[in-house]
Amino acid sequence: MRRQGSRQQAPPRSGPGSAPATGRSLDALFDPGSITVVGASADSSKWGNILSRRALESSRDRPVVLVNRRGVEVLGRRTHRTLAEARAQLGEPLDLVVVCVPAVELIPTIAEAVGAGARSLVVITAGLSELGADGALAEQEAVRLARAEGAVLVGPNCLGLVDTSTDLQLSHDLLPVGEVAVLSQSGNVVLDLAVLLKDRRLGVSRFVSLGNQADLSVVDLMASCIDHDDTRAVAIYSEDVVDGRAFVTAARALRAVGKPVVLMAPGRSTAAVRSAVSHTGSLTSAYQVVDAACAAAGAHRVDNPTQMADLLQGLLSPRRMPGRDVAILTDGGGHGAIAGDALAAVGLETPVLVEDTCAALRAQLRQSSTVSNPVDLAGAGEQDPLAYVRTLATLLAAEEVDGVLVTGYFGTYSTQESTLAPLEIAAAQVMADVVTGQPKPVVVQTIHPEGKTGSLLRTAGIPVHRDIDRAAAVLAGLVEHPARDPEQLTLPTADLAVTDTSYDGARRLFADAGVSFTLAHTVHSSAELEAALADTTMGFPLVLKAMGRQHKSEGGGVVLGLRDAVEARAAYAAMLARLDPPAVSVEPMVDTSRGVELILGCVRDPRFGPVVMVGLGGVFAEVLADTALAIAPVSAGSARRLLLSLRAAPLLLGARGREPVDLDALADTISRVSHLAAAHPELVALELNPVLAGSSAVVALDARVVLGQPSTSRR
Amino acid sequence: MRRQGSRQQAPPRSGPGSAPATGRSLDALFDPGSITVVGASADSSKWGNILSRRALESSRDRPVVLVNRRGVEVLGRRTHRTLAEARAQLGEPLDLVVVCVPAVELIPTIAEAVGAGARSLVVITAGLSELGADGALAEQEAVRLARAEGAVLVGPNCLGLVDTSTDLQLSHDLLPVGEVAVLSQSGNVVLDLAVLLKDRRLGVSRFVSLGNQADLSVVDLMASCIDHDDTRAVAIYSEDVVDGRAFVTAARALRAVGKPVVLMAPGRSTAAVRSAVSHTGSLTSAYQVVDAACAAAGAHRVDNPTQMADLLQGLLSPRRMPGRDVAILTDGGGHGAIAGDALAAVGLETPVLVEDTCAALRAQLRQSSTVSNPVDLAGAGEQDPLAYVRTLATLLAAEEVDGVLVTGYFGTYSTQESTLAPLEIAAAQVMADVVTGQPKPVVVQTIHPEGKTGSLLRTAGIPVHRDIDRAAAVLAGLVEHPARDPEQLTLPTADLAVTDTSYDGARRLFADAGVSFTLAHTVHSSAELEAALADTTMGFPLVLKAMGRQHKSEGGGVVLGLRDAVEARAAYAAMLARLDPPAVSVEPMVDTSRGVELILGCVRDPRFGPVVMVGLGGVFAEVLADTALAIAPVSAGSARRLLLSLRAAPLLLGARGREPVDLDALADTISRVSHLAAAHPELVALELNPVLAGSSAVVALDARVVLGQPSTSRR
Repeated sequence: MRRQGSRQQAPPRSGPGSAPATGRSLDALFDPGSITVVGASADSSKWGNILSRRALESSRDRPVVLVNRRGVEVLGRRTHRTLAEARAQLGEPLDLVVVCVPAVELIPTIAEAVGAGARSLVVITAGLSELGADGALAEQEAVRLARAEGAVLVGPNCLGLVDTSTDLQLSHDLLPVGEVAVLSQSGNVVLDLAVLLKDRRLGVSRFVSLGNQADLSVVDLMASCIDHDDTRAVAIYSEDVVDGRAFVTAARALRAVGKPVVLMAPGRSTAAVRSAVSHTGSLTSAYQVVDAACAAAGAHRVDNPTQMADLLQGLLSPRRMPGRDVAILTDGGGHGAIAGDALAAVGLETPVLVEDTCAALRAQLRQSSTVSNPVDLAGAGEQDPLAYVRTLATLLAAEEVDGVLVTGYFGTYSTQESTLAPLEIAAAQVMADVVTGQPKPVVVQTIHPEGKTGSLLRTAGIPVHRDIDRAAAVLAGLVEHPARDPEQLTLPTADLAVTDTSYDGARRLFADAGVSFTLAHTVHSSAELEAALADTTMGFPLVLKAMGRQHKSEGGGVVLGLRDAVEARAAYAAMLARLDPPAVSVEPMVDTSRGVELILGCVRDPRFGPVVMVGLGGVFAEVLADTALAIAPVSAGSARRLLLSLRAAPLLLGARGREPVDLDALADTISRVSHLAAAHPELVALELNPVLAGSSAVVALDARVVLGQPSTSRR
Repeated sequence: MRRQGSRQQAPPRSGPGSAPATGRSLDALFDPGSITVVGASADSSKWGNILSRRALESSRDRPVVLVNRRGVEVLGRRTHRTLAEARAQLGEPLDLVVVCVPAVELIPTIAEAVGAGARSLVVITAGLSELGADGALAEQEAVRLARAEGAVLVGPNCLGLVDTSTDLQLSHDLLPVGEVAVLSQSGNVVLDLAVLLKDRRLGVSRFVSLGNQADLSVVDLMASCIDHDDTRAVAIYSEDVVDGRAFVTAARALRAVGKPVVLMAPGRSTAAVRSAVSHTGSLTSAYQVVDAACAAAGAHRVDNPTQMADLLQGLLSPRRMPGRDVAILTDGGGHGAIAGDALAAVGLETPVLVEDTCAALRAQLRQSSTVSNPVDLAGAGEQDPLAYVRTLATLLAAEEVDGVLVTGYFGTYSTQESTLAPLEIAAAQVMADVVTGQPKPVVVQTIHPEGKTGSLLRTAGIPVHRDIDRAAAVLAGLVEHPARDPEQLTLPTADLAVTDTSYDGARRLFADAGVSFTLAHTVHSSAELEAALADTTMGFPLVLKAMGRQHKSEGGGVVLGLRDAVEARAAYAAMLARLDPPAVSVEPMVDTSRGVELILGCVRDPRFGPVVMVGLGGVFAEVLADTALAIAPVSAGSARRLLLSLRAAPLLLGARGREPVDLDALADTISRVSHLAAAHPELVALELNPVLAGSSAVVALDARVVLGQPSTSRR
């Protein structure tokens, strides 16, 4: 797994490949010239003991100095009472310092450490910002001290740091060596993941326990992996991505150099919903926003460590599915049917193969074999295990096939005392060559993945699973995402901030951005009403909307269906008497039955900035939670994909005898609104509700903007 | 696992516990006095060789006779050329005969076998009804011959039969001994399942490869397990449940004696939809009908062998979840959060614990522990592993907790050289006692399920999993289903079959069953129209519906919103001119905005008989596929649960400011329609579309019935 085992003897002070997002070098963190453990302990249950032991194991030609304020012997080594003493012992400035002291000693310890030349600090000490304001203040001071001397700090409240490419293992358990950088907010989850990776013959290139991220954040550490040669994929466990925009940028940069990012970020079950300053906000959960960020970044989201390990295994091979169409290759109808269900459950398709492919398969197989899809050898493999390989090669060559799932008994013959055992192993060898010589993924499910056949295939980079649902999930994770939308990383600032949040002001703002509205006259008097009624382009029926109310549809602020001037005058008078609004908007009433009503809005997420949301109006978005989100701004192309991802999308495409709506115009409107939101950080919400999408036009029927600071407490 | 190992030396000809649905004894099948293999072969790749070997291995004190028409030696044994010779050799009538001859020899072989006294036949021979009409005829004749002599027949096209409680193993591989009866249409799937069961220290009590089910069906074999002492659960793989009603009855009978039924029946991906003789039919997939049957039977449906083995392991313990509320017990926040998501994904809840429970937990744990839910020991378990047990006991005693999921590091200490190892093992022993002494299930996820702690818990019947999603799925499978609805097994027959499928006739039929309709006058002339218009209870606006058309809403057959008599007369005249209908229904127009429109229908499924379907009108049912199905007839209580299972159910309960609908009246209507469908087998479809459910009444606005034979080809 490891491609570069030996660390540099004399690491350059600022080498390539170590620049974090902050621009500071992380060399001293991942490849230190020396390690000092302060708070080294003789008690084997303490972190100060465990990390001292690990530091000594990691030493090789790297000096290790232990500091214990009482100077007791630790692990058979003498200790120093102060960091100054440690520096004197070392004969040169300290490099990496591991801090295991109690919280009350943190600030003086950091001061001493940087005073003695420390360039990087791994702070195990807990009981700081995670416990409240006092701890947060101490934490900030520690970071200030470190930064003032140009040192970088991991933690506090961190559980260690590993770089297997430099033989540095500073964590509770020794981690298996491999190519996955693991950045995590949980220690136990990483211990779990490490065992799963090892079971799959994978391992860790780097591990950083993020702790409170007071100085170095997950984004800095992601950036440090971009040109770390020994890292080929990045796995992240995070309960709160603090700088969501930077996360997206860093994940894109990793992808650009061929390093997939897999994110485990729980919260589906308690998915926090923003306080409802707008309908859009009430329909936007934190969980969905993280999904949108992963889509924008081309990162993969997983739910648990098993799924993470499985997907990493698949992603470490270069093969990807260009689309969602899978061919199933089986040796029994039962396994084929079960596999079809497993693929459907993860959103993949098992389409009937084209006639050319079927003909090619028929020419190779027995009469009893079925060739449509699933392709069922039906005993042909028992006659000649090479039938599996020939069939697989034909399927991989078929244009309509994006990937192949092999399922059933294959892999079991090699575990038996059978004349078929050597034949199956020989077939697996040819199969490995066939698969690795082409670009489409193959995933295998077998009763005996631990057998020789399974082992041989796995060594060739072909995922081999015991369980069909796991195999299907990996294939789903290997589907190529659409190309990244470059607009999602731009946040253009408008020349003027919005100050007018009136209905008129909101309409003007959206209209200037290119959104179409129905006609409207804002009237302040009976005379102005008469002028509006004289506008023959309006026609009847009319709608009156009372201005100056947060929710026009509540409290009788909207009167619909006024059929003539007499009814309009009466309604106007009644509205003045009832609500005394500062103004009234007079608008033609639109026949909403001739189109599809949507809600289109943007909110400013405290982590990820502007987010655009679209859903069908009424019950679809609110009762059925059928909404789609993206990090704003989006291109029209991305907006179109967003619309088509709605469960109710068939209604836009002409289901139930409707005319299809003008998807291009609708996507364009979404894109424009998303750019508007991006350019106006002073707005926490922008909303068009409803928007009426017809077959040849898209018209907004109402508009609203909300000024304010985004909430930072979402949990 | 095995509770009764020894077979009876002289099995009684008709013992208890062996009565299939047909009432015929299966003693000679599962505990034969002798075994005869006809088609015994010297070629080790042939079934006639493999099953001869298995028969000899199964023999003990059971005579085995091999028949080979050429009389060649097989497995070192002499063979006989005919079954008559075999009988002479045996000195008594044959008992079980395994038939491995080519298809062309099937009929004479069966005739010979029953002539020589065979009481049971396991027919491996393939190439019969599965290949077409000729084979089907031969198969029918074979069954006729067997039945005429009182013999039972498994297969043809079967892959063997096993009863480990009588040491009978007649299948390709030896199966592990255990308590699960496996009835399967696929051989390879059972080989897969058997390995999974063995991995979980479970095994097979009986295995029957169902083959073509020409004589004994899956239902007969289910029935035979009801009082088979060595069977404690029944696992079924079936691609087509031929007699669905009998399946439901047999599964209920098994449940009644405490034997859970787990069904794997693929088809989700290609879920066949009935030809659309009605909207109801077009909205009813075969896959959903099987789900409805499982709900009616209290059977568990699974998607793949892994899920089946996992759930069987859970079901073999007596503990069940009375509801869906789970407490998570963890030793790390990360595992707790991931577990919460895993439970949500399978429809379980992780509610905040009540204050009494929290107080009890706080009294036991450290300050850093969180007690809300997930309950996070946060290091308390590292101090004292018994903390896990005390916390678990408190959670199990809490009334608001239906089951507990333990997740994280626990189970790992015992795999390490640590002073905690013996303490963890001791804690696991106490934990096992705590769990087994009470009725709620506990499922454990741990990094090292293979360790001593995991092993100890598993031995006590506590499922221990490596993966959190698997652990969550098992808990979901242990939720108690609602009590069976007794009405679902009754099919009362109406005195008179329906012959009048006109709109009037359909309305009368439903109305007689207690369904409320709007007023309607069927008019055949202008004079009758005037009489209808004179009915002052009707009011305006009115609706006209042209009779005699399949789809009234197509082709201008319905005219809405006629505001007065003048408009009504004009519309009537225009309708006559346009469509010349035999009659026209004149009805008051109902304001559908004051309620929720539903579609309510029944179809007669070729496998499962009458099925009732309900969904919200329009796009909900058709575009979003939000429909709920049940085997008809249903009680009002079951109908209510059906309504509440809709995704759009909040609309019935008063979402978005609506008044809640009269759920009791709606459930009553569904129940009545389902009974009507059950009583009229001559109807393939009955439909009320739409039904308008208001806050105090339920009114059908249209009605339709379709006569005909149900289609038997669904795939």
